[in-house]
Amino acid sequence: MIISVIGGSRTSARHLEVAEEVGAELARRGAILVCGGLSGVMEAACRGAKSAGGTTVGILPGSRREDANRYVDIPIVTTLGEARNVIVACTGQAVIAIDGEYGTLSEMAFALRNGIPVVGIDAWSLSKREGLDDSIIVASSAREAVDKALAAVE
Amino acid sequence: MIISVIGGSRTSARHLEVAEEVGAELARRGAILVCGGLSGVMEAACRGAKSAGGTTVGILPGSRREDANRYVDIPIVTTLGEARNVIVACTGQAVIAIDGEYGTLSEMAFALRNGIPVVGIDAWSLSKREGLDDSIIVASSAREAVDKALAAVE
Amino acid sequence: MIISVIGGSRTSARHLEVAEEVGAELARRGAILVCGGLSGVMEAACRGAKSAGGTTVGILPGSRREDANRYVDIPIVTTLGEARNVIVACTGQAVIAIDGEYGTLSEMAFALRNGIPVVGIDAWSLSKREGLDDSIIVASSAREAVDKALAAVE
Amino acid sequence: MIISVIGGSRTSARHLEVAEEVGAELARRGAILVCGGLSGVMEAACRGAKSAGGTTVGILPGSRREDANRYVDIPIVTTLGEARNVIVACTGQAVIAIDGEYGTLSEMAFALRNGIPVVGIDAWSLSKREGLDDSIIVASSAREAVDKALAAVE
Repeated sequence: MIISVIGGSRTSARHLEVAEEVGAELARRGAILVCGGLSGVMEAACRGAKSAGGTTVGILPGSRREDANRYVDIPIVTTLGEARNVIVACTGQAVIAIDGEYGTLSEMAFALRNGIPVVGIDAWSLSKREGLDDSIIVASSAREAVDKALAAVE
Repeated sequence: MIISVIGGSRTSARHLEVAEEVGAELARRGAILVCGGLSGVMEAACRGAKSAGGTTVGILPGSRREDANRYVDIPIVTTLGEARNVIVACTGQAVIAIDGEYGTLSEMAFALRNGIPVVGIDAWSLSKREGLDDSIIVASSAREAVDKALAAVE
Repeated sequence: MIISVIGGSRTSARHLEVAEEVGAELARRGAILVCGGLSGVMEAACRGAKSAGGTTVGILPGSRREDANRYVDIPIVTTLGEARNVIVACTGQAVIAIDGEYGTLSEMAFALRNGIPVVGIDAWSLSKREGLDDSIIVASSAREAVDKALAAVE
Repeated sequence: MIISVIGGSRTSARHLEVAEEVGAELARRGAILVCGGLSGVMEAACRGAKSAGGTTVGILPGSRREDANRYVDIPIVTTLGEARNVIVACTGQAVIAIDGEYGTLSEMAFALRNGIPVVGIDAWSLSKREGLDDSIIVASSAREAVDKALAAVE
């Protein structure tokens, strides 16, 4: 099982805690963690996963493996800049979004476009004239997000 | 001036009319039209632009220039699949979104991420816990969308 | 007709002259010129094309349209870094390679991979144990390169 | 240590044997194997790595993780088509090329462009008017290739 965790490189202390707990819980459940490999939510999730003995993959935007945060086991060097977001989104069998800015939004959009379940904790919500888009599965805690992500894959 | 027009390959008859009028109005104002090069909103916008003597660029996802709709002057063959959306978003000095699904949402996200003004006609609206994100400039007609897009660039 | 001209951003004065003449000749024949949009061979080819009234497209690696050389009419902002080379290669109906380093080699490889004719002036030659790969069409002047590229498309 | 193994999806029985032995030897030395995730050289190398208890990463061109050969532990779903070659090339700290066609050539080019050592077994050789490009490290056996690749990284 491979789950992507997405969210901004800058976020609140509370969201960093949530990200760390998501990473740890994914590792306890035996899932490989994929993320964008940098700081903020990405680093916190990787740190959590490593604390629980998990495996972490960082899909990096640049050309230097050294850009990966220290908790990334396998740095994937894409050289693609922000376009690497499509890979972060599509490599997970489900995506957990925590807070996040427009880069995170692009990842949510690519996941939804490809039929990959997206669970959000304080993430973007989307609406059109017709009303709210209910494709994003809402969770309010790390545990609930991981439960819902794994359930959506199985 | 280069303006991107984005929106789904499937949309309503009314949105196709709006797209065609947006393309025509952009051409009258001397702007080059960039789009994803395929059908639906993309084709209607290109048809409008050509009817008014404009120039059209289609950023294609596949490897065949023949995939471009007949109103594309310059087909850009990316071979990148949906990841080409980042190019559609970033090549415009402003983006006009008409209706649209998740692919369109990814383009809006990349534009906003890169500080490119986004004007929406019946497009996605975005919110977070804190409330509505007011970055998307709302328009209700083709003329208003073009006016606001050009004003946002200048 | 769309022809890509590829080659290094650093090259000899003689190769810059050849690139400029290739650009001019393509414009005289009515072909649109596609290139990587930066300096060296790319800029010289664009300058040549504009001197003969042609149209030029620059497929840029970065996120700033201002990076394009001054002779680019239509800057395509890819944000993809060197991965944009696949787009430069595949957007041309034929490719003309002038001198060039490893980036140019990657473009030649993508063009050959996609069945797009490649004409080389002092460009890479390729061989394997079995001997020389004769897929690259050799030319020794700008005029000859353009003749052979256009003939390969028709 | 992460090493990329590249080569065609179609190749000779002898080159498949070499690829399998390269994969096994990399695993014995503790290196993670990265490849394009599909058949031929990619599959043989992954099979070899798994037979020796190694870890394998497959950088897939399409949008389906199921496209990965059965010996891939971690499928990276890029959706980028052949443009994913730049990621295969740049994720390795060194690259081992076995035989291969134009896709492999594009990967060799990207690796050389980024200063990543390339070891070739019956792979492309490159020359320009000035003579042979000696950047590619030649090896004639799986063991020699792995020795030279690891030596080039350290």
